[in-house]
Amino acid sequence: MKIGARNRLDAEVTEVKRGTVMCQVKVKLAGGGNMESVMTLDSLDDMGLKVGDKVRVAVKAVNVMLIKD
Amino acid sequence: MKIGARNRLDAEVTEVKRGTVMCQVKVKLAGGGNMESVMTLDSLDDMGLKVGDKVRVAVKAVNVMLIKD
Amino acid sequence: MKIGARNRLDAEVTEVKRGTVMCQVKVKLAGGGNMESVMTLDSLDDMGLKVGDKVRVAVKAVNVMLIKD
Amino acid sequence: MKIGARNRLDAEVTEVKRGTVMCQVKVKLAGGGNMESVMTLDSLDDMGLKVGDKVRVAVKAVNVMLIKD
Amino acid sequence: MKIGARNRLDAEVTEVKRGTVMCQVKVKLAGGGNMESVMTLDSLDDMGLKVGDKVRVAVKAVNVMLIKD
Amino acid sequence: MKIGARNRLDAEVTEVKRGTVMCQVKVKLAGGGNMESVMTLDSLDDMGLKVGDKVRVAVKAVNVMLIKD
Repeated sequence: MKIGARNRLDAEVTEVKRGTVMCQVKVKLAGGGNMESVMTLDSLDDMGLKVGDKVRVAVKAVNVMLIKD
Repeated sequence: MKIGARNRLDAEVTEVKRGTVMCQVKVKLAGGGNMESVMTLDSLDDMGLKVGDKVRVAVKAVNVMLIKD
Repeated sequence: MKIGARNRLDAEVTEVKRGTVMCQVKVKLAGGGNMESVMTLDSLDDMGLKVGDKVRVAVKAVNVMLIKD
Repeated sequence: MKIGARNRLDAEVTEVKRGTVMCQVKVKLAGGGNMESVMTLDSLDDMGLKVGDKVRVAVKAVNVMLIKD
Repeated sequence: MKIGARNRLDAEVTEVKRGTVMCQVKVKLAGGGNMESVMTLDSLDDMGLKVGDKVRVAVKAVNVMLIKD
Repeated sequence: MKIGARNRLDAEVTEVKRGTVMCQVKVKLAGGGNMESVMTLDSLDDMGLKVGDKVRVAVKAVNVMLIKD
């Protein structure tokens, strides 16, 4: 399966925080560093995501910003 | 300065591909792995971004998707 | 493979318009109606997308707007 | 009125799930298939959206991903 | 017509820069300040947008970031 | 510090509405008009955002839609 998102990083789920409609999933990248995803609880439950799961992080390139100090 | 994006990773610009209106900037993460950003040429030129620059990658958590194999 | 996007529709690629950095891919939904995706040429070429290909359309729910007349 | 989003599909609201700040609105496309939108409760109440309402779904093409199996 | 985007500002088109697939449209807000939109050329032509046109700017609240110095 | 978002407007926080995972922050633009941002509570707390704070609003141009009546 191929997906049209240029940014794909291997990661592991480290925390899941459930809200009423949305949830926040924290992951640790294989190469170090942390990222977070916000999705609906329905998506979380569909995927059966839980702490310790191996996932890939996907972000469309148009949604990536660069900051230069 | 603080920015309301939960995903911030250190990176270095490895390639800049200029189009007519948009451009594609490839970066290598400090921890390994590559990411890409698409922005307007105006943004690129405003920031004066070039290969070798140290940048931070910022992505809003709502734009991060997780994929489970 | 499971993906954290609540909106997934079956479709077929009907047109590919290549720019310098980006491209525009038009698809016809299985249920009728058309949609379009803008992605980098690199993504297009990675996936090897061409007219006639069967694809699934994925959109994060936060990026879906509803309009009421 | 014209809107700069290339993806517009006719749909009907089938479910509204209210959270504390956000809500999730499920719609059934006229051509078949389901989609979902996440928005603020304020947006929902401004529009007065409820089950059974006819709406149009709008998505910017840059936020549409294609997946090829 | 009601649209599910909480951010709507009155503006006037001040510049249109056409690329191959995408274009960049600059607008001046009624209250002062400038904004920009990137869309497909198809969207631009569908709307018949040109310099001097009165438009409304719409942004989903999830795509708005706040920066604190 | 330079950020790759073409839309930056000065504003002041007028209201913060906390949910379980997300929150909604309303701001008043220096030039008049209001905008809103939805972010995680974690982002809000990281920034220590509160009513009366001066902020800058940043939006990537690809997430800006124009509507023509």
